[in-house]
Amino acid sequence: MNATPPPDRLGFRTARREDLPSILALLADDPLGAERERLEDPVPDPYVRAFSAIEADPNQEVIVAERDGQVAGVLQLTFIASLTWQGSTRALIEGVRVAAALRGLRIGEALVGEAIERARRRGCRIVQLTTDRSRTDAHRFYERLGFKATHVGMKLHLDDRSGDFH
Amino acid sequence: MNATPPPDRLGFRTARREDLPSILALLADDPLGAERERLEDPVPDPYVRAFSAIEADPNQEVIVAERDGQVAGVLQLTFIASLTWQGSTRALIEGVRVAAALRGLRIGEALVGEAIERARRRGCRIVQLTTDRSRTDAHRFYERLGFKATHVGMKLHLDDRSGDFH
Repeated sequence: MNATPPPDRLGFRTARREDLPSILALLADDPLGAERERLEDPVPDPYVRAFSAIEADPNQEVIVAERDGQVAGVLQLTFIASLTWQGSTRALIEGVRVAAALRGLRIGEALVGEAIERARRRGCRIVQLTTDRSRTDAHRFYERLGFKATHVGMKLHLDDRSGDFH
Repeated sequence: MNATPPPDRLGFRTARREDLPSILALLADDPLGAERERLEDPVPDPYVRAFSAIEADPNQEVIVAERDGQVAGVLQLTFIASLTWQGSTRALIEGVRVAAALRGLRIGEALVGEAIERARRRGCRIVQLTTDRSRTDAHRFYERLGFKATHVGMKLHLDDRSGDFH
């Protein structure tokens, strides 16, 4: 992948707690996210607790793209020391969202590029992510960035099953 | 998924440093792992460093299955505080291997069950993993355990690209 100049007036930084309402709006403004998230004011406690845990963890970062002082995109990056691939560190990308009004400006590309660059600086050998099978645009997007769809991503939801496993 | 009694004489515990040679042997004894890992004595430094990082991280655990005092299987479990899904914690499973001579004894099923139980105790709402597309047996195995293949798993290898992104 060649470097692509980021769109004008675009910057990246680690998210701060006061970004949470903007981040939550991005997470909820999504066909799948709309059913999963709770867009409320004030921000519901579970998001605040998760953000605090992420902030306190040296292996986690929430990165925001900022355009003209507004949060235009977000993703979560996790660094994972791993035994496989000769003890490599992996970077996991989750929750990539760009504001609907700002799509087509290559903000997502620049934001993921920022995450890849941070992963490289941390010595990661693999950057990985999963995207829902229904997000075919996303698959093409990541393939353009050099990702290969080599894996099947499998999920087990524990929500409604507490107590019935053991 | 209903609880399945583990095979006789099988136990689970968090891995210790002295398990590393046995763990490495399991990781290398695999069609894909054979090309990726370095099965050497002493254990190459990158594995030792990765294991130390995992041991020091309260969000990471390497779990071994032990049968008659021998390491019979291994997996790596990572707990990830996440903003999405209403600030849920996810559990990521990587590097699942069972000794070739001991396959068919449901050790893998019991080992993944142990990981799911640990994830549940940590309050995780989602357990996730990716498996190589070529591992069709593994897909069926995880589906039997209740996982759904809802996602595409995408990887970007940074190895031979250092310096060419920016």
